[in-house]
Amino acid sequence: MADWQVIEGNITAPKGFKAAGITAGLKPSGSPDLSLIYSETEAIAAGVFTTSQVRAACVDYCRQRLQAKASARAILVNSGQANAGTGKQGWDDAVESAQLLAQGLNISPESILLASTGVIGQRIKMEQLRQGITPLIQSLAPNGGDKAARAIMTTDLVPKTIALETEIDGRPVRMGGIAKGSGMIHPNMATMLAFVTCDAAVSTALWQQMLSRATQKTFNQVTVDGDTSTNDSLFALANGESRTAAITEMGPNAEKLEAMLTAVCQHLAKAIARDGEGATCLMEIQVTGAPDDQSARAVARTIAGSSLVKSAVFGRDPNWGRIAGAAGRAGVKFDQNNLLIKLGNYVLMDQGQPLEFDRPGASNYLKQAASGAYLEQDTVLIQVDLGTGSGQGTAWGCDLSYDYVRINADYTT
Amino acid sequence: MADWQVIEGNITAPKGFKAAGITAGLKPSGSPDLSLIYSETEAIAAGVFTTSQVRAACVDYCRQRLQAKASARAILVNSGQANAGTGKQGWDDAVESAQLLAQGLNISPESILLASTGVIGQRIKMEQLRQGITPLIQSLAPNGGDKAARAIMTTDLVPKTIALETEIDGRPVRMGGIAKGSGMIHPNMATMLAFVTCDAAVSTALWQQMLSRATQKTFNQVTVDGDTSTNDSLFALANGESRTAAITEMGPNAEKLEAMLTAVCQHLAKAIARDGEGATCLMEIQVTGAPDDQSARAVARTIAGSSLVKSAVFGRDPNWGRIAGAAGRAGVKFDQNNLLIKLGNYVLMDQGQPLEFDRPGASNYLKQAASGAYLEQDTVLIQVDLGTGSGQGTAWGCDLSYDYVRINADYTT
Repeated sequence: MADWQVIEGNITAPKGFKAAGITAGLKPSGSPDLSLIYSETEAIAAGVFTTSQVRAACVDYCRQRLQAKASARAILVNSGQANAGTGKQGWDDAVESAQLLAQGLNISPESILLASTGVIGQRIKMEQLRQGITPLIQSLAPNGGDKAARAIMTTDLVPKTIALETEIDGRPVRMGGIAKGSGMIHPNMATMLAFVTCDAAVSTALWQQMLSRATQKTFNQVTVDGDTSTNDSLFALANGESRTAAITEMGPNAEKLEAMLTAVCQHLAKAIARDGEGATCLMEIQVTGAPDDQSARAVARTIAGSSLVKSAVFGRDPNWGRIAGAAGRAGVKFDQNNLLIKLGNYVLMDQGQPLEFDRPGASNYLKQAASGAYLEQDTVLIQVDLGTGSGQGTAWGCDLSYDYVRINADYTT
Repeated sequence: MADWQVIEGNITAPKGFKAAGITAGLKPSGSPDLSLIYSETEAIAAGVFTTSQVRAACVDYCRQRLQAKASARAILVNSGQANAGTGKQGWDDAVESAQLLAQGLNISPESILLASTGVIGQRIKMEQLRQGITPLIQSLAPNGGDKAARAIMTTDLVPKTIALETEIDGRPVRMGGIAKGSGMIHPNMATMLAFVTCDAAVSTALWQQMLSRATQKTFNQVTVDGDTSTNDSLFALANGESRTAAITEMGPNAEKLEAMLTAVCQHLAKAIARDGEGATCLMEIQVTGAPDDQSARAVARTIAGSSLVKSAVFGRDPNWGRIAGAAGRAGVKFDQNNLLIKLGNYVLMDQGQPLEFDRPGASNYLKQAASGAYLEQDTVLIQVDLGTGSGQGTAWGCDLSYDYVRINADYTT
């Protein structure tokens, strides 16, 4: 049983956080495009970033900021322009954005974090951003998380939010999260854009460790199309406003907090996979029997990322051969004569031997899985046992549809 | 200038080779599905195979065969069923196929090589194969290479063939090749199905080295959809029938032979990329300025394999940001401030700075590139300089279209 409950709200559910989301005119569409997440007190801040060699200015900026000082008061997020591949000018724009927000909030620029999402190679529309700062700050509200979640969206179909509550030493501790991402999502890199707030009191080092471990099992296990963004960023703020005793080392309270953090990240990661561009369903790949957990995660990711598996799921085609093929090329050693593959409750292969199975039934399973309630019953479950060790891991992805091609064939023009 | 000329024909252009391709009834479609490549004398044989953990029976069979004896007289290829993931029964089928052909040709089973392509998890239809062996052998002809090339096709739109001729010590030496592949093609693994014949006299060890090096620069640099087959196999036979002196060590003659082998492999690799499922054009990615050649090839492959780059090319959208993004995540270190990106003659980025460029012109370049003559003027050229070292490498791929999804969403059902 989980040690927490789902509650209403999102990043503004924990104590001491406000948020806002407005239309500043950065997006040609006129949709909301500027978000602010704000903590009333200085919060411990941890970050995980893209490992790409081509990075947005905000990524380099925030990595430096957090290395110098692992705390923050506010996160400014613009959508519309990625500000990646924009050279020196892009860096200057990032610095100016942080300074403008710091002035408006009357805090130090060193307490500001930044994130951008949108078209790579385009600078932020600075004129619109400058004019947007004041109304953005004026919009800050204790229930502003939903607006913030909407203003970070690009090709996302739905906002992605969650809030959980647990008890630590008899006091309620809350955690909330929002995320965006759809297209350009790939494992083994940091992540898309995701923001977690928490009112627990925790030490800087422990909080960063927890976030890194949670990322490995969640955001890094999500794949939509094999591409990794120049802008992937995940921030987690913990401001201590729950007034619980500070958690400074691993133990029952720390484990509870880390489990909740992992649950928040997993929910957001799955929501991102489900909202993959053109997706009609979520795919969950559970791998067991691997030499170790890392290998299991690698195999799960490779299956989740296989264009042929994704196309087959879109076609509601129980093509286990493609699953076996993807498992085989993941770079993990195993004996193919031990391989077990299940699709829902249908065992398709056992001991490396293909089984006769109810093909229309398995195809129906795929059809039904894709028609269920969003993020509840629309999950296609693929289980693979390598029969080699005790390592296990899970990855999430989505199917590959005509719409993926349509969306990505005309994004800039 | 190349040291050879293109001649008519294919695998039966070199002296002493015959080939055949017939309809044995393995494919439901009734298309040709059984091929035979035959050398009148025992030929030196080299092979490169998939590195997947899930392999077709024929792959394991041939790897063992070649380790025991690096020569062959005949290669039997069936299309329709991949005979991968078929367990013990699949292995027995492979052994029986080789024995049947050996009996029919009255040679040792140890002189037979095998390859299969088709649906993973399906055994070869052995009844049809057994009945097909005799008519297949009867069809062997000195000009049978084209029929063999057609009978190895699955979702391929066109057969892929080439023949070259050079002179060694004043005598003509010929080399021919055929290949199939479209879907499930990925770099860093051996290859799809490709067969090279040659009438040069060359030592076993040198021939295998030449083939491995040529594969690295050609077949391993082709990507269509990121998936690697369980069946990837490349065989090269050299039967010495040109009656030239045996080439046993590197030198001018060996270099000439290796250059010709690389050219044959490159032609076939490009033909496979161009024929990628649903492709409308070939993409050639040339990377320079990398730390070393291996790094350059890795960056080129990553760009060629990026779903976002491929979708943009299909949309005729000069989206250089996606090219930069893909380069950045290839696992190769470089300074993004040195990055140069060209699309055809359009410089899109220089010194890491995006340039103003003629967007309609660049889009027109993409449109024209895709409408040119097949494999001659239908190539989209993307050049990337990392500004770091002197390493260079090329990769080939194709764009990602609606048809890719359509073809792969209903392949088995």
